[in-house]
Amino acid sequence: MQLTETRLTESHRPTLDQALEAIRTRAYWSPHPEHPKAYGESAPADGLAAFEALRGTRFDLKQPGTDGWAGGEVSPYGIELGVEYPHPDPDVLLPAMRAGMPAWREAGPELRALVCLEILARISARTHEFAHAVMHTSGQAFMMAFQAGGPHAQDRGLEAVAYAYAEQTRTPEAAAWSKPQGKRDPLALRKTFTAAGRGVALVIGCNTFPTWNGYPGLFASLATGNPVLVKPHPRAVLPLALTVRAAREVLAEAGFDPNLIALAAERPGEGLAKTLAVRPEIRIIDYTGSTAFGDWLEANARQAQVYTEKAGVNTVVIDSTDDYKGMLSNLAFSLSLYSGQMCTTPQNLLIPREGIATDTGRKSYDEVVGDLAASVGGLLGDDARANALLGALVNPEVKSRLEGAAELGEVALPSRKIVNPDFPDAVVRTPVIVKLDGGKPDAEPAYLSECFGPVSFAVAVDSTADALALLRRTIRDQGVMTVGAYTTSGETERAIEEVCLEESAQLSLNLTGGVYVNQTAAFSDFHGSGGNPAANAALCDSAFVSSRFRVVEVRRQA
Amino acid sequence: MQLTETRLTESHRPTLDQALEAIRTRAYWSPHPEHPKAYGESAPADGLAAFEALRGTRFDLKQPGTDGWAGGEVSPYGIELGVEYPHPDPDVLLPAMRAGMPAWREAGPELRALVCLEILARISARTHEFAHAVMHTSGQAFMMAFQAGGPHAQDRGLEAVAYAYAEQTRTPEAAAWSKPQGKRDPLALRKTFTAAGRGVALVIGCNTFPTWNGYPGLFASLATGNPVLVKPHPRAVLPLALTVRAAREVLAEAGFDPNLIALAAERPGEGLAKTLAVRPEIRIIDYTGSTAFGDWLEANARQAQVYTEKAGVNTVVIDSTDDYKGMLSNLAFSLSLYSGQMCTTPQNLLIPREGIATDTGRKSYDEVVGDLAASVGGLLGDDARANALLGALVNPEVKSRLEGAAELGEVALPSRKIVNPDFPDAVVRTPVIVKLDGGKPDAEPAYLSECFGPVSFAVAVDSTADALALLRRTIRDQGVMTVGAYTTSGETERAIEEVCLEESAQLSLNLTGGVYVNQTAAFSDFHGSGGNPAANAALCDSAFVSSRFRVVEVRRQA
Repeated sequence: MQLTETRLTESHRPTLDQALEAIRTRAYWSPHPEHPKAYGESAPADGLAAFEALRGTRFDLKQPGTDGWAGGEVSPYGIELGVEYPHPDPDVLLPAMRAGMPAWREAGPELRALVCLEILARISARTHEFAHAVMHTSGQAFMMAFQAGGPHAQDRGLEAVAYAYAEQTRTPEAAAWSKPQGKRDPLALRKTFTAAGRGVALVIGCNTFPTWNGYPGLFASLATGNPVLVKPHPRAVLPLALTVRAAREVLAEAGFDPNLIALAAERPGEGLAKTLAVRPEIRIIDYTGSTAFGDWLEANARQAQVYTEKAGVNTVVIDSTDDYKGMLSNLAFSLSLYSGQMCTTPQNLLIPREGIATDTGRKSYDEVVGDLAASVGGLLGDDARANALLGALVNPEVKSRLEGAAELGEVALPSRKIVNPDFPDAVVRTPVIVKLDGGKPDAEPAYLSECFGPVSFAVAVDSTADALALLRRTIRDQGVMTVGAYTTSGETERAIEEVCLEESAQLSLNLTGGVYVNQTAAFSDFHGSGGNPAANAALCDSAFVSSRFRVVEVRRQA
Repeated sequence: MQLTETRLTESHRPTLDQALEAIRTRAYWSPHPEHPKAYGESAPADGLAAFEALRGTRFDLKQPGTDGWAGGEVSPYGIELGVEYPHPDPDVLLPAMRAGMPAWREAGPELRALVCLEILARISARTHEFAHAVMHTSGQAFMMAFQAGGPHAQDRGLEAVAYAYAEQTRTPEAAAWSKPQGKRDPLALRKTFTAAGRGVALVIGCNTFPTWNGYPGLFASLATGNPVLVKPHPRAVLPLALTVRAAREVLAEAGFDPNLIALAAERPGEGLAKTLAVRPEIRIIDYTGSTAFGDWLEANARQAQVYTEKAGVNTVVIDSTDDYKGMLSNLAFSLSLYSGQMCTTPQNLLIPREGIATDTGRKSYDEVVGDLAASVGGLLGDDARANALLGALVNPEVKSRLEGAAELGEVALPSRKIVNPDFPDAVVRTPVIVKLDGGKPDAEPAYLSECFGPVSFAVAVDSTADALALLRRTIRDQGVMTVGAYTTSGETERAIEEVCLEESAQLSLNLTGGVYVNQTAAFSDFHGSGGNPAANAALCDSAFVSSRFRVVEVRRQA
């Protein structure tokens, strides 16, 4: 059945309108259910079977300019995926991708948005299959892979589509202009305004959140009229390959060129992202990953708009609390979730040397750190629960960093090895907490750089004022994706807010319940600020979409 | 009288609302009258007297960190201005500018917009004085200095304020968020969202349009919460010094720190823009000028958002017309206005070698060029009218280029010296038109680079298809601010549009009346596209304002 504009409008225009309303009110909203059971009785088995059927196959997308095959993903849970993906000849693929641009531009912002929503709906229908693909590339535990890799990622994609639509429709398609000239006839012009994409957009995927971090840029670029070339992380290709396949199917069914989206898998050590990033056809780049390569892209891919999310040193200021137990369990969960392998996981916990006031009396620095260690220990005491929370270490570098962390200071909570009975080859570790003295300059290199993985530092500071000075320096020099803070003092609260406002950091205050500093909700929370070194863009705001297209005006005498 | 929020709202909220409506509909609108008589009977004499009173004085803005005085402007009309302006010590001035940021941020988007509108109203009231200041720094004739330097510049400033306001208010100041949890209590958060400026914004002014090109960035940055340091072109300081003084007065009267805006005059050969541009406090830069320095800024001022307008090679495609006389007179005016010293003036006229179809019969290439030359000659035949249209050459470099143009090819219309009886030292020249053969590679260096000033090239091309190929190459490689075209063929019209849509250029079709390709109207027309090498930003769209601030979110458990 052909995907007509009428059918797309009936299916998706109400969802688009709800998304537009949600980004305006920032109230809770999502059209993508979080619970696996919401997808139908047979969905779990079907999803697993679909994933299993992919293993050991060639993932042929029938793309032009495929000059070979690349693959070799090994799950952090130990299994080999054995899937082969198309490797591109850019000289053939990139011009082929541009060919579909005029028709895609002429479709206009609304139809483009509706096509994007149909793509997301197809992906949503296969959330169980995606969950396995995300789990076995990122090392996330199944439930997290399901939620963060499924509905939450789809939400972020939809949010980008809504922003793109809103931004492109702020200028009318046409306008009559008439300027009075006193007694003479007015000057009159007919004007048209067309949102035109910039050119091919390159999405450079990451290992840990291939869909969640990939979808905002992918859908923002596609919805603003640009073809999208997806270059996944070589260890996390499958979720994005499934995405590209769904998108190509929908584009073709809606009468557009499927080559408006394509996959570019790379051979080991090839550095394909670097080659593609400086091609003149590439006019937009979205990247999540290391600071070194993000900086390289910003400095070298000068022909493109470059959106980067890089390393950061997330910080929690602990000044005082009226819910000590709630604070500890909230922090323990934040440190444990996906083994601290989130770009939003707290790394540095700044705690006054003389201790803090709590609802259960004054607690010394050592007590706070000890109680937090006990809280993490309790949370992860049961191996089944630990496996469900921690997932697996995504790569050997994380394991090395974890092992090296014990050398950096006094270990308050040692890491513990956990066996995953379903996947005995998975590397599962509980987080380590290391005590550092913020007053000692030789401790600075440890806590003033990102130590990605299940490592956090309990940094002893002279005072809350000292903590705020360190927080400011950290945001300004290292960047942060998240800041957390606990305080019962209104004055301290205002001082922390002021630092975050001045240095541009997103702040979570006194979280003691079921919301965690490392989780953000699409349509309501911003992910990153785009104003400190951790990221030059926020997910999602109009700055994230407004430079992906240009408004071309044609004026004619009336 | 104190400028209270109530008073500012009463005075300016209706204007802001009208501006917001105008950028949405793109219909004609302006609150700033174009006619000098609209400013009151005594305004012309008062304005001239105010300008004369400034000559030979020290323009003291009482800025902190003033370590000396710089000046030395000589009018293109020959008179010495003799005004001295503050030279900054950035180590003192920049921190002083940052000090006012928190209160300016707390004022919020609406009050900031209203304060900006009050600044514009003060400037508008002194439009006659500004006209003389613009005339005697840019070399524009009085009427153009009045209109382009006055109401049109004020319009562009107001337009930027409207975009800034709209963009900052898309996210609510606060939101309640409640996520259902089945039978358990919902997760609930209280969230606040604050538009926070990035830091000090640097405006690097140009010689030809100090206010028109300076106001969009200046007001966009100020309205989004950033202090603004204005570094004028050393030959065009006065109009921006007057602007800064008006802004400082209004800021102080409204209870804000006047140091939220400051002037930085430079000493001869000092290269102050380069020094300031890479200071860590500078987070935003707006620049109009040479491609070389624009590229340097983009490559080196990596700590800042950099908005540039650089050189371009504006092109007119002449395929056919049903109003030959109207086309010739329209083009003649475009080439003559301000001696072709507009970034929007057409440079290359692409004319098929075998001639064009017109309402008065087929015209050969030579006839078209000859008739255009005659039209320019007729337009500028009367010296008084010529002076009123041409103004004066802004600097000796323009004169050299004009004199060198005759060497580049066959001169179809020689430049003529004109005496300005009021200012005998003014260098006034009519434009030159040079014939070039688009088929000869040795002609390419001439027409494929910007020749800023009263020089245009009648480029003979093999066909209209050939013209479109050259147009595409020009936009892509050199950049354009404007494209014009004349055709009676629907098919050709669509082909030209397609090139402009694909390469991102603003197109004016078949202009034969009183609207010219080199003029754009604020609130309706975009100036530049931001999508080709001539400029990385368009005046004005949301991309121009949305990265000047970041939205900082604070979330608290509800």
